[in-house]
Amino acid sequence: MNENKHTEIISDKEMKSGITAPMGFLSAGLHCGIKRYKKDLALIVSETPATAAAIFTKNKVQAAPVLISKKHLNSNDKFRAIIVNSGNANACTGEQGMKDAVEMAALTASALNIKPEEVFVSSTGVIGEPLPMEKIRAGIGKIVDMLSEDDSNAAAEAIMTTDTFPKFTSVEFEANGKIATIGGIAKGSGMIHPNMATMLAFITTDAAVEKNYFQNVLKKTADKTFNRITVDGDTSTNDMVIALANGVSGAEINDDSSAAFETALFELMKKLAIDIVKDGEGATKLIEIVVEGALSDDDALKAARSVAHSPLVKTAVHGEDANWGRILAAVGYSGIEFNPDDFEIYINGTCILGKNYDVKLSIEEANKTLKPNEIELLIKLNEGSGKANYWTCDLSEEYVKINGSYRT
Amino acid sequence: MNENKHTEIISDKEMKSGITAPMGFLSAGLHCGIKRYKKDLALIVSETPATAAAIFTKNKVQAAPVLISKKHLNSNDKFRAIIVNSGNANACTGEQGMKDAVEMAALTASALNIKPEEVFVSSTGVIGEPLPMEKIRAGIGKIVDMLSEDDSNAAAEAIMTTDTFPKFTSVEFEANGKIATIGGIAKGSGMIHPNMATMLAFITTDAAVEKNYFQNVLKKTADKTFNRITVDGDTSTNDMVIALANGVSGAEINDDSSAAFETALFELMKKLAIDIVKDGEGATKLIEIVVEGALSDDDALKAARSVAHSPLVKTAVHGEDANWGRILAAVGYSGIEFNPDDFEIYINGTCILGKNYDVKLSIEEANKTLKPNEIELLIKLNEGSGKANYWTCDLSEEYVKINGSYRT
Repeated sequence: MNENKHTEIISDKEMKSGITAPMGFLSAGLHCGIKRYKKDLALIVSETPATAAAIFTKNKVQAAPVLISKKHLNSNDKFRAIIVNSGNANACTGEQGMKDAVEMAALTASALNIKPEEVFVSSTGVIGEPLPMEKIRAGIGKIVDMLSEDDSNAAAEAIMTTDTFPKFTSVEFEANGKIATIGGIAKGSGMIHPNMATMLAFITTDAAVEKNYFQNVLKKTADKTFNRITVDGDTSTNDMVIALANGVSGAEINDDSSAAFETALFELMKKLAIDIVKDGEGATKLIEIVVEGALSDDDALKAARSVAHSPLVKTAVHGEDANWGRILAAVGYSGIEFNPDDFEIYINGTCILGKNYDVKLSIEEANKTLKPNEIELLIKLNEGSGKANYWTCDLSEEYVKINGSYRT
Repeated sequence: MNENKHTEIISDKEMKSGITAPMGFLSAGLHCGIKRYKKDLALIVSETPATAAAIFTKNKVQAAPVLISKKHLNSNDKFRAIIVNSGNANACTGEQGMKDAVEMAALTASALNIKPEEVFVSSTGVIGEPLPMEKIRAGIGKIVDMLSEDDSNAAAEAIMTTDTFPKFTSVEFEANGKIATIGGIAKGSGMIHPNMATMLAFITTDAAVEKNYFQNVLKKTADKTFNRITVDGDTSTNDMVIALANGVSGAEINDDSSAAFETALFELMKKLAIDIVKDGEGATKLIEIVVEGALSDDDALKAARSVAHSPLVKTAVHGEDANWGRILAAVGYSGIEFNPDDFEIYINGTCILGKNYDVKLSIEEANKTLKPNEIELLIKLNEGSGKANYWTCDLSEEYVKINGSYRT
C-alpha cells in the first residue's frame, strides 16, 4: 500500500471529525435499544439544503429504507438529513417495513422542522424482523438534541455491526481559490453479524456540487473504490452510499475545480474502502492486488477481481504461503487473454516469479514476503498497458467461526 | 438427496469395480515414489481399440498433459490407454514439461505395444516443479505387469491427492437387448494439497459409441453433473474428464438405445460428482440446491449457482443456522428476475419460509432442519417452470486450515 500518497491532501482533521469536518454539517449517535448495549441510531444533518448523490444495492431484494431513499432521491432536489439505524435491516418485512421506513423519515423531518422527502433512511442488521418502532421513535426524539459539529465518532459507531472499529476520514482540497472539505463515515461489508453483508457509507462536503454531475462522479469513483473491494463476494439487500453537498464553504465545483474535487473524493472513498477490507471478518492481512500489462484496463480488472475472489489465494496469503501457482491459475480462469510464459509476480516489491516460470526464490524465502500485515501483490502480464487495482483480505478460520454460529 | 433413484440402474458391481466393471478394461495403481508413501501412478487399458470423448480445463493456463491429451484426441480416432500420475501436476513446467508428457505417452505405448497417440496422459499435484521422470519411467515399467480386470480400487487410489476416500462406481443398462456397463473413477475438486484444485474423472464403457455423438453426450452430461458442483469456485490447470468406449459387450448405442445410455451416463457422473462434493476439503455436509419455478432453466441455474457459491450460505449451513435471509439475498444478486414476495424455502422437505416472508418456524425449530449430513435446500420462486440442481458442501474452519498451511 502506498499510504504516503494520501498525506498531501488528508488534513489533520481526519482523526477527529469525519462527516462533520466539512462546514455546516452536524451529527449524533446514541443507543436506543435495538442492540443490547451498543449505539444503534445515527443522524447526519446539513444546516442548509444540500444536493445529493446516492448509490443503492443492485440486489433484486431491496430493503424498505433503500426503496424509500431511492424514491426521495428521484423526486426531490435538496436534502437535509440521513437517519440510520443498526441492529435491524428492515429488509423482507413487507408492507409494515415500508410503513416503518416512511415513519422514520417523517419523525426525523418533524423533529428537524423539515420535509420528510428531504430525509434519507438507512438500516443494517437482522433481516426478516419488524423494526422495534417504539425504541426508534424515542431515539429520534432524543437524537436531535444531541446534534453536534464537534466530531462524528458517535455516528460512525452507531452504524457499526460486526465492525471492530469505526471508519471515518476527511480530505481538504482547493477549488477556485477556496478550501473545501469532504468527510465520510462507513461500515464494513464483511459478512455482518447477525445476518447480512451490508456496506454503508455517508459522505458530506461543503463544496457546491451540481446534482447530475455529483451522481456521475460518485458512481465513477465508487467503481474504482467500493466496487473494487471484496471480503466474501456477497452483496446485501441494504447496501447504500449517500453523499450530500451543501456549498457552505463557497467553493464551487466547475470545470476548473472538478479535477481537484474528483481526486479528493477518490482518496476519501479509497481510504474508507480499504478500512472496510482491513476490518473484514476474521481478516489478518490487507491484500492489494495490482495487475499491470493486460491488453486493456477491463482485462486487468477481470484478472484482479478473479485473484481477489479466489479462496485458494486468500487462504494461501493467510498461511503466508507464496503459492504462485494459485495466483497464476486464478488469472487463468478469469477469461482474459494472456500468455502464461510472460507472467511475473512481485510480492511487496520482491519478484518471486519471472517470465517463463522462473522461480526466483526458495519456498522459505518467498514465504517471507508475506510476513507483513499489508501485502501488495503485483502481477505483470507483459501483454499491453491495461492496469487495475483491487483490495481484499485473507481468509481465516476466524471468518468461518464468526459466520457459522451467529445465533448460537 | 434422492439416492433411491440410482438403485434401479446401479448394479452390485458398484462397490468393487469402477472402471473395470465394463468388459475388456484393465487397470492398475502403484506407488512409484512421486509421493512419499501413497500410490501415485495409475494405468487404464482397453484390450481393444476404443472411441474416446474428453473434456479439458478451460483455464488459460493448461498443463503439459492437457495439451498432449488434447492433441491426441484431435488427431486420432481409436485409443487404448490412459496413464495418470498424482503428486506432481506437470503444469507451468515449460518445454521440459511437454517433453516429459510426451515421454509418458511413449513409454506407456511401448510397454503395451501400441502407438503413443493411442495414449492419454493426465497429471495432478504440485505445479511448477519438474516431473521426477526416473521414478515415472520405473513405475511405467512395473505397472503394465500389474494390470487386472478384478477391480479398479488401486487406480482410484493412485489418482487421489487430498481426497479422503477413492471414488468409483458403475452402472448397467440395456441397449438393444444387450446388457452394457459404464464404470468410472474420479478425484476431488476441493482445493488440492499441496497446490491445485484439480478434478479428474475417467470413464469406461463396453458399449459401442460413435465418436462425435460420444463427445456431445459427455459434454452435455458434464454440464449437468461435474459443472454443477462447487467446493470453492477455483478452476485448475489440469482438470480433465476422459471417456473410452470399446464396444466389447456388443451393445451398440443408436437411436433406439441412446436414451438408456444417456440416463446411465448421467447417473454415473452424478454419483461421482456428488462423491467429489462430499469429500470437499473440510466438508461436513453435502448440500443439494434445488431451484424451481424460475422463468427459465437458465435462470434457475444462475440462482442455484449463486446460492452454492455464497460463503454466507455455506458457513450458515455449517453452523446449522437456517438463515433464510442469506439464501434470499444470494438469489437476489444472481441477476435473475423474480418477485421476493413469492419466495419459498424448504429444507429437507420442511417449509421454513412461505410467500410474503411468512416465517413458518421458530429459529430453534428451523435450525433443526439442518442437523442431517445431507441437506436438500429447495427454493421455490413461483414465477415459471424453470428448474435446476446444484451441489456443494459447507464451509468449515477445517477448509481454511487445510489450504492456509500446505507447505508448513
